[in-house]
Amino acid sequence: MKGIILFGHGARNPEYIEPFKRIRAVVEARQPEVPVEIGFLELTQPPLEASIECLAARGVNEIRVVPIFFAPGRHVLKDLPELIANALERFPGISITVAACVGEVGNVIDAMAEHAIQPE
Amino acid sequence: MKGIILFGHGARNPEYIEPFKRIRAVVEARQPEVPVEIGFLELTQPPLEASIECLAARGVNEIRVVPIFFAPGRHVLKDLPELIANALERFPGISITVAACVGEVGNVIDAMAEHAIQPE
Repeated sequence: MKGIILFGHGARNPEYIEPFKRIRAVVEARQPEVPVEIGFLELTQPPLEASIECLAARGVNEIRVVPIFFAPGRHVLKDLPELIANALERFPGISITVAACVGEVGNVIDAMAEHAIQPE
Repeated sequence: MKGIILFGHGARNPEYIEPFKRIRAVVEARQPEVPVEIGFLELTQPPLEASIECLAARGVNEIRVVPIFFAPGRHVLKDLPELIANALERFPGISITVAACVGEVGNVIDAMAEHAIQPE
């Protein structure tokens, strides 16, 4: 069974998680059969490890981790692979793929440009 | 004259600036008459102050700062207002407005959700 994790950096502001919840809600509305978890590198709960554990407990064995980052930096290129390597040791039956950062995706670029142009 | 600044966090990876350049290219293609600069909080050049200075030198007196952040955290709620307050002292003839973070915008949320669903 497939599952998705929206992977974010995390922040001290408790409202930081809201956009992640909105993304999850859109994904769940379109694919109700695919479990979606949110997991963070630091500061915001839950950590990525907990999200992977949660999906594993629900029977997911193919996880697509989607970095909610604008561009690959240290967190995506170094921290994330380390977290995933640790998770694969704990859950050897699971496969994990990492998607492109959302900021590298044409439709996301276009939507951000549209917002830059349009006053609210 | 109006101008736009795409404001990002910054990162050590030199490729971090690429999505910002892509957003700028889309904005410039749609509004060739509006100057667009990219400015960062830290690590990536140029800093926001330099972008404001650059727009001011080009005769811009109304700047729309667009936070390329997923959600308002400390950097957008505290650091950015401080940077802007300093800039307004240096350039008293300029007005600066701050747009919503891109991660709070419905079309951006939808595009990120679409990417989360669609394998490349």
